[in-house]
Amino acid sequence: MRPSGRAPDEMRVIDIQTGFTKHAEGSVLVSFGDTRVLVTASVEDKVPPFLRNKGQGWVTAEYSMLPRATHTRGSREAAKGKQSGRTQEIQRLIGRSLRAVIDLKKLGERQIVLDCDVIQADGGTRTAAISGAWVALRLAVDKLLASGAISEDPIIHKVAAVSCGIHEGTPVLDLDYVEDSSADADANFVLLEGGKIAEAQATAEGACYDEESLLRLLRLARIGCEQIFAAQAAAVGR
Amino acid sequence: MRPSGRAPDEMRVIDIQTGFTKHAEGSVLVSFGDTRVLVTASVEDKVPPFLRNKGQGWVTAEYSMLPRATHTRGSREAAKGKQSGRTQEIQRLIGRSLRAVIDLKKLGERQIVLDCDVIQADGGTRTAAISGAWVALRLAVDKLLASGAISEDPIIHKVAAVSCGIHEGTPVLDLDYVEDSSADADANFVLLEGGKIAEAQATAEGACYDEESLLRLLRLARIGCEQIFAAQAAAVGR
Amino acid sequence: MRPSGRAPDEMRVIDIQTGFTKHAEGSVLVSFGDTRVLVTASVEDKVPPFLRNKGQGWVTAEYSMLPRATHTRGSREAAKGKQSGRTQEIQRLIGRSLRAVIDLKKLGERQIVLDCDVIQADGGTRTAAISGAWVALRLAVDKLLASGAISEDPIIHKVAAVSCGIHEGTPVLDLDYVEDSSADADANFVLLEGGKIAEAQATAEGACYDEESLLRLLRLARIGCEQIFAAQAAAVGR
Amino acid sequence: MRPSGRAPDEMRVIDIQTGFTKHAEGSVLVSFGDTRVLVTASVEDKVPPFLRNKGQGWVTAEYSMLPRATHTRGSREAAKGKQSGRTQEIQRLIGRSLRAVIDLKKLGERQIVLDCDVIQADGGTRTAAISGAWVALRLAVDKLLASGAISEDPIIHKVAAVSCGIHEGTPVLDLDYVEDSSADADANFVLLEGGKIAEAQATAEGACYDEESLLRLLRLARIGCEQIFAAQAAAVGR
Amino acid sequence: MRPSGRAPDEMRVIDIQTGFTKHAEGSVLVSFGDTRVLVTASVEDKVPPFLRNKGQGWVTAEYSMLPRATHTRGSREAAKGKQSGRTQEIQRLIGRSLRAVIDLKKLGERQIVLDCDVIQADGGTRTAAISGAWVALRLAVDKLLASGAISEDPIIHKVAAVSCGIHEGTPVLDLDYVEDSSADADANFVLLEGGKIAEAQATAEGACYDEESLLRLLRLARIGCEQIFAAQAAAVGR
Amino acid sequence: MRPSGRAPDEMRVIDIQTGFTKHAEGSVLVSFGDTRVLVTASVEDKVPPFLRNKGQGWVTAEYSMLPRATHTRGSREAAKGKQSGRTQEIQRLIGRSLRAVIDLKKLGERQIVLDCDVIQADGGTRTAAISGAWVALRLAVDKLLASGAISEDPIIHKVAAVSCGIHEGTPVLDLDYVEDSSADADANFVLLEGGKIAEAQATAEGACYDEESLLRLLRLARIGCEQIFAAQAAAVGR
Repeated sequence: MRPSGRAPDEMRVIDIQTGFTKHAEGSVLVSFGDTRVLVTASVEDKVPPFLRNKGQGWVTAEYSMLPRATHTRGSREAAKGKQSGRTQEIQRLIGRSLRAVIDLKKLGERQIVLDCDVIQADGGTRTAAISGAWVALRLAVDKLLASGAISEDPIIHKVAAVSCGIHEGTPVLDLDYVEDSSADADANFVLLEGGKIAEAQATAEGACYDEESLLRLLRLARIGCEQIFAAQAAAVGR
Repeated sequence: MRPSGRAPDEMRVIDIQTGFTKHAEGSVLVSFGDTRVLVTASVEDKVPPFLRNKGQGWVTAEYSMLPRATHTRGSREAAKGKQSGRTQEIQRLIGRSLRAVIDLKKLGERQIVLDCDVIQADGGTRTAAISGAWVALRLAVDKLLASGAISEDPIIHKVAAVSCGIHEGTPVLDLDYVEDSSADADANFVLLEGGKIAEAQATAEGACYDEESLLRLLRLARIGCEQIFAAQAAAVGR
Repeated sequence: MRPSGRAPDEMRVIDIQTGFTKHAEGSVLVSFGDTRVLVTASVEDKVPPFLRNKGQGWVTAEYSMLPRATHTRGSREAAKGKQSGRTQEIQRLIGRSLRAVIDLKKLGERQIVLDCDVIQADGGTRTAAISGAWVALRLAVDKLLASGAISEDPIIHKVAAVSCGIHEGTPVLDLDYVEDSSADADANFVLLEGGKIAEAQATAEGACYDEESLLRLLRLARIGCEQIFAAQAAAVGR
Repeated sequence: MRPSGRAPDEMRVIDIQTGFTKHAEGSVLVSFGDTRVLVTASVEDKVPPFLRNKGQGWVTAEYSMLPRATHTRGSREAAKGKQSGRTQEIQRLIGRSLRAVIDLKKLGERQIVLDCDVIQADGGTRTAAISGAWVALRLAVDKLLASGAISEDPIIHKVAAVSCGIHEGTPVLDLDYVEDSSADADANFVLLEGGKIAEAQATAEGACYDEESLLRLLRLARIGCEQIFAAQAAAVGR
Repeated sequence: MRPSGRAPDEMRVIDIQTGFTKHAEGSVLVSFGDTRVLVTASVEDKVPPFLRNKGQGWVTAEYSMLPRATHTRGSREAAKGKQSGRTQEIQRLIGRSLRAVIDLKKLGERQIVLDCDVIQADGGTRTAAISGAWVALRLAVDKLLASGAISEDPIIHKVAAVSCGIHEGTPVLDLDYVEDSSADADANFVLLEGGKIAEAQATAEGACYDEESLLRLLRLARIGCEQIFAAQAAAVGR
Repeated sequence: MRPSGRAPDEMRVIDIQTGFTKHAEGSVLVSFGDTRVLVTASVEDKVPPFLRNKGQGWVTAEYSMLPRATHTRGSREAAKGKQSGRTQEIQRLIGRSLRAVIDLKKLGERQIVLDCDVIQADGGTRTAAISGAWVALRLAVDKLLASGAISEDPIIHKVAAVSCGIHEGTPVLDLDYVEDSSADADANFVLLEGGKIAEAQATAEGACYDEESLLRLLRLARIGCEQIFAAQAAAVGR
């Protein structure tokens, strides 16, 4: 039995609220249960220095937790003067995941920044962020298409992400904080609609795991991502 | 005529939503029109080094804008590795304003941190933050009283804040971004219920102003703070 | 009775020594009693990035305390690797105050940096800095005019600043350290010759204050600034 | 055909030279072909603050590339003043991998720091670092056992790591730089002797991959790790 | 002929003004011609962590140039967020030089910090700083002796420093900025009264130099230091 | 008797291994006994901003100790976020020493960066670094000459460096760590083949020293540098 009473392959309630803030080209408040992440997509008419005059665009991400998104207050990274290794690892993962589904040449010489700010944390913030970021990116690209700034849709796939793990010996889907903090293994899968894998990461926290477990975690992730794809589709209205 | 169509002494709609996040001892989403600030109050069983073993507590504040709270994306302070002068000035003001209404001895040797994160900005973020922070502080202190951690209420006043300014020659209350960016003078008043002043700041942006204007701005601030005090009272249920 | 024996509306001795150092275009050692600030004005043939090719100049300020300007040694900000919030707040105020009295278009595409280094602190360092900075700016602009680099005087007003406060219930002018550290309220006024206000800031430190007190502090500031304007005029010889 | 002429499941030459430097409790120069990493294990009689008085030890890692380990010189992180996200991600992975095979309670209240400095880079630096770090850790723990500082061997498994990837459609083992920079997918596996998995990470760089590919990469990793386990055993003489 | 018209072995006018600021235990404005350095000695009842409970004290120095001490404005190290290599090199030299003449055991468990702030630079700032720092240290130690905080004088020697160099082929004493910026070699000597050497540094800037030149520079330094010792003695009244 | 049993004027075994790493234009592992420094010379087709379009090149150096190059582990400067004063002082010395023997105009508008990373430390790391850096520079310049990128050899001298010191009253050559840590004086000499001096630094650590000692240290340095020049010549094959 999971602490939340959910079945092993049961996701938390997914909610994707678009237009949560008004300035960003794409703005989404994504919730996986009590985990809530605000993702904004900002279109900028510039690219990073290493891409100047290369005829292509860029998609990147930044991630942050509000200090009291968690049970006890964490110190503010802006006040400490640097981002933690965890923050950098997560924002690199988010950026990579979204770049996996966009044709940067079709985007033109512009950058889309995906800001993922965790309002409330209850496990799975990075995968919720990726799942929401796709919606924010979709909304921002739709604006570029509508305005005629770009003529061809650069988004080539849907992408979603979910965490799974082995909790008290059982592979389970979409860990909340209570499960996450005592899991033997913790995995994050970033999947395309159709089944391809953009990223798989499975880390032993307590006992190391075997190949069969890895495959069962992946199968759970497929179940979860189907639901996320549906929620994304509903959020963008197609 | 103001760009928003408001009368010179007319506030934007004030909304104070408590319990916006679940972990913090006090959590408030405060809106002044399109300006929305999430304020959390976190109780910590420690005090800053300069207060150790002095038999008193501390109240402090941190302030931040989400990168895309504004019209164009601002860079993330955690990524730049330092807080701007503007951020530091604002968080010092918020901390000072709240310390003006609390008896730190009665609080005991603990610290309350007020995190003010601007979700969406449309002028007046620091004054909305102060107004919301009082509610978050009130909620957190109520928990301390309810749990018996402290026996006497350390909060001795209500405090609220509002911005005013001289826009196209007319003193107006509660500037939004459009007014703020073209105002001749920009003022922030932090007032106690009953009329005392905790902080007055009035800065010429274009033309310098005279004593009469300063007084008119103060009078507008009094009008605005009356409404904020009412909204605070409604939010905390007394 | 004030600790110094001064009357409530009595300034400390003001001294403005020009040419204290030889390299700067304007150099001033300004003293308000035992508070001594070295202000240099440096003319640079460049403007900050946000003003490039906008046909106007810029005036900015930096502020610092020598570590042992104070009773006990403070740590050196260069060694700590960052400027405190207090330092940033003060240098923003100084820059704003001087920009209030200069026509940046007439200055042309150049920047004047006002470095305010506190040699000895005894209260009122920021207001002494502003008062001295006007003289340093005047001297630097006079050199630009004399050399023909600019043809029209960009300085449109005189500006001076002074602190006031409520000490043991009495509004007093030009607080020294002893008064400042025990004042109930602490105010800084930046005034133009003629009476207009560039900046008013009044902060409750102990008890909050009322409107009448704010007005009395402003009146004291007017008395003090008259004497500062006279000292500035004497220093620049007109 | 691979650029190096190797078969798809062929490792580069593995070399593990112990005692490369004299001060460290464990010191190893590990080579996977032209990739060379110096790993030292330093025993310190202290633990990080979060573990004080908890009756257990800690194992952590730091990773760095010498500026000219690579084809073109990279800037020195100490000179830039911060470690890149990539560096932090790698050193977190190394630390986690080694903590997966040690009983921290049996280690006692001490810390072992694994410094992994890349002398020369040709792909697979992080997996070479993990593989070498196990040897350095083994040597350092042997000294603790020999000196009587600890009585029971805290190392409970052997761990090795290797990179694999999909290069021109073919899953290949132990990518060198040429393959790595053009691979469609890039994976790192951290395996225990016996077959359990401590960490699996597989990232699409070009095209996303399917489940079958993930499994084939894992099978290649098993082949590579067998050889690494043998080299580790030879290096430590058992 | 030297640009200043001085003879090769002629010092600039030395002036040592004590009591330049009022808070520090020792305060000196030292001038070597147009080079002016404010040195304060601050006594602190603590020692650095590595000396705690070792029964001895510490003497250390910090050095800084005011931004406009020089011909063109230099950027402020506090604003840049770090001290330059030159600054660190100089303050290490100053600290070492003064520690060479004090018995740290007799000083007791306290620290004296020598802050050397260059008000105006015209060559030789580090040697002027050392020469002035001895006076500031002497004054601070005299206060400790007078108050009974220490019973035995810990200062065991007089120390002075001067720069010399080879300018247009001629060894000259006490270089000013014009000479310094075109010298072939630049040397700094820190000497004890009586002739012993605490530090000798001679750097080729253009052509390398020979042993004979090194000796002639040292002889010039002896001439200069005699005058500095006399000025120091006059300043401290003995 | 020296702790190592060496005669006062006896160097440790010098070893200069070229081609230690494969990517750098010049790569050298230099050993003075147990002190081992990896020096790479990297040619870059750019110059620092202050030299742009000046028709000359630049040579600069960076220095670092691997954390466990020493008896006890030192913290990693990249992790601390800044380079120590010692590091900066040393890398400035190395850069200066090599610039003393190269005609920067003949080098053309390119920069050579000398990275000196201490693999193992046993005293004299900075002088070993300088001595090895000359070889790395020589190798890199030879490549530029061979490729026709430059037509005239810009290297105008050989340079070598060695430490000396006064140990238990006796001037000795090439101090190892044991001697270095208890020496009364510590000197570093950077000499050209032929006898000219590029840099002389002699610091009293315990007792101050006299002129005769300075000369004897210099004479020892000459003896040591002769051997280093021979080793350099052997390493570059001429």
